[in-house]
Amino acid sequence: MIVLFTDFGADDIYVAQVKAVLAQHTAPGTPVYDLLHSVPNFDATAGAHLLAALQGWFRAGSVFFAVVDPGVGGARDPVVLEADGKAYVGPDNGLLSVVAARAAKARMWRIVWRPATQSLSFHGRDLFAPVAAWIATGNLPKDSLQEIPALSVQLGAEDLAKAVYVDHYGNVLTGLRAANVSRSAKIEVDGHQIAFARVFADVPAGGAFWYENSVGLVEIAVSGGSAAQTMRLRVGDPIRLA
Amino acid sequence: MIVLFTDFGADDIYVAQVKAVLAQHTAPGTPVYDLLHSVPNFDATAGAHLLAALQGWFRAGSVFFAVVDPGVGGARDPVVLEADGKAYVGPDNGLLSVVAARAAKARMWRIVWRPATQSLSFHGRDLFAPVAAWIATGNLPKDSLQEIPALSVQLGAEDLAKAVYVDHYGNVLTGLRAANVSRSAKIEVDGHQIAFARVFADVPAGGAFWYENSVGLVEIAVSGGSAAQTMRLRVGDPIRLA
Amino acid sequence: MIVLFTDFGADDIYVAQVKAVLAQHTAPGTPVYDLLHSVPNFDATAGAHLLAALQGWFRAGSVFFAVVDPGVGGARDPVVLEADGKAYVGPDNGLLSVVAARAAKARMWRIVWRPATQSLSFHGRDLFAPVAAWIATGNLPKDSLQEIPALSVQLGAEDLAKAVYVDHYGNVLTGLRAANVSRSAKIEVDGHQIAFARVFADVPAGGAFWYENSVGLVEIAVSGGSAAQTMRLRVGDPIRLA
Repeated sequence: MIVLFTDFGADDIYVAQVKAVLAQHTAPGTPVYDLLHSVPNFDATAGAHLLAALQGWFRAGSVFFAVVDPGVGGARDPVVLEADGKAYVGPDNGLLSVVAARAAKARMWRIVWRPATQSLSFHGRDLFAPVAAWIATGNLPKDSLQEIPALSVQLGAEDLAKAVYVDHYGNVLTGLRAANVSRSAKIEVDGHQIAFARVFADVPAGGAFWYENSVGLVEIAVSGGSAAQTMRLRVGDPIRLA
Repeated sequence: MIVLFTDFGADDIYVAQVKAVLAQHTAPGTPVYDLLHSVPNFDATAGAHLLAALQGWFRAGSVFFAVVDPGVGGARDPVVLEADGKAYVGPDNGLLSVVAARAAKARMWRIVWRPATQSLSFHGRDLFAPVAAWIATGNLPKDSLQEIPALSVQLGAEDLAKAVYVDHYGNVLTGLRAANVSRSAKIEVDGHQIAFARVFADVPAGGAFWYENSVGLVEIAVSGGSAAQTMRLRVGDPIRLA
Repeated sequence: MIVLFTDFGADDIYVAQVKAVLAQHTAPGTPVYDLLHSVPNFDATAGAHLLAALQGWFRAGSVFFAVVDPGVGGARDPVVLEADGKAYVGPDNGLLSVVAARAAKARMWRIVWRPATQSLSFHGRDLFAPVAAWIATGNLPKDSLQEIPALSVQLGAEDLAKAVYVDHYGNVLTGLRAANVSRSAKIEVDGHQIAFARVFADVPAGGAFWYENSVGLVEIAVSGGSAAQTMRLRVGDPIRLA
């Protein structure tokens, strides 16, 4: 199973090209999941915290194609991470580093294989996709990888007290794991204090609250409305607990 | 065949999680169709009329995962509807009720099975997806369902004289079935009277008209333009026939 | 392999209906790729140049379902193009004509088969999808096609000095092939002159540049930003080389 996690946009020209390459290197019918193609553009930090939360819902053996790569064509290395039985293929720019830091067991490699022809701007298609496909099928050529002791860019295992994603309802996901936050804590936004609620149905229409979302993160929501619009929240905004 | 019909957003973090669960409970290669993930947010009424129109294009034996569920975590029941040879899995909040009311044959059940662990906010993933998968594969555990005589929330079989969906061209779909509307009827919008046309190619660029769309609904359109923008129409707006 | 290239919108009600029809006429597991569903609405010219650039990444034997069809229901013919080992199914409105003009070998046919029932507005589902499926499976009924010497609407093989697509990053793709443009050429936009750069990582944040994108087109970009917003560029805008 290959899981795609990118900022390529689901309705754009990039994802199908990646899938066509994956198909060339995998058995027919190999499942490919579009986990998310709207990671905030160029934002490896937000992506790293989202990926760490979302990967939990995929089984051991999954291969994540995780590409948010504003430095493509520059000096950053392409890498592979193996963490608690799952593999991650992507750039060494922090994106994989929260998963790595939180894993019980992690190994990592620099990808030294290079395609015969490679575009300067789309390593996702030309370099990361073949490597992800080969890992998924167990056909990675020897000498493709060189083990490294650590990633170059490390964001650490700690939670991130910022907004990391706004979903299409306008709910604001944070980099805080709800297991680490007291249910009596309030979030200060825009001069208001937002209290915990168990679930949308417990809050009157238009009311703001925070809750533990379905992947374990603290999420700010407005019942029947858009928290992002109502409270003018954007990805990167700091989240203050009171 | 499993058909997804939700307000989860196609480019958001929810659909892939549902698909991963479906894959755990179905044979490899079981087809899953993304019928629509942009049902108007939280709008079970608009969704009910869209679903009733769109389901006609899928074969008997199809299993619809139909989830627009603003009351998740509250008192509404999860239900299964069997209507004219197709199955529907979703919340008992009206979403399935137009299909039920229009069916020649319908039976319905409350889902009494509960997953060992269930998020409070994402029953789509945790409860509805396994049930849909089991129905699609014929593996639904005995005692998962309890037959009920009727749905709790019933919108009825009648057409809905409102805008129920705006597509990405700006065409405005209504809850009126075109078979029930005279071709000489005009639609009053914003002080203008809009006449019937057979097809876009019959109308000069910029002209407004209504027509029978490809799923049998009355649809308001502007040739080469956006009816929603031109006429400031939104989901929920009343549609007046003159 | 069937490749979808349309202006139907990825998150709208149309694509799944097409896929359901394709599935009825192909073997289970036949791969279907969503190359692009956000071709600029109604814009066969922009679509023609995008298609010519994007098709190169798909293998011989691919069948393209290419439908941008504002004249649906009018006089334009449905056609099939065979060009350099790939097939294209779509309307004869220019959309397939750049591929045809640039091909080393091309043959073309009018589709004379008609479905028993056909909606007036959705030939994609009712006419083009079955034909594409039959070609992909080698089951096209005899007498479905009638060979024609040329397409009715021909845009020619030449490059197009216009913006043809804005991706979700705000990068602006043009109809100019980068192989035909000197690296010392500058693009004049909005009173500024934009120089070539090899890749995003070579340009300081906020800087504008043009580069050869991953499908060989001249693309205007802003490092870490949106070229379309910064320079107020839209599809159809002329691109001037200095």
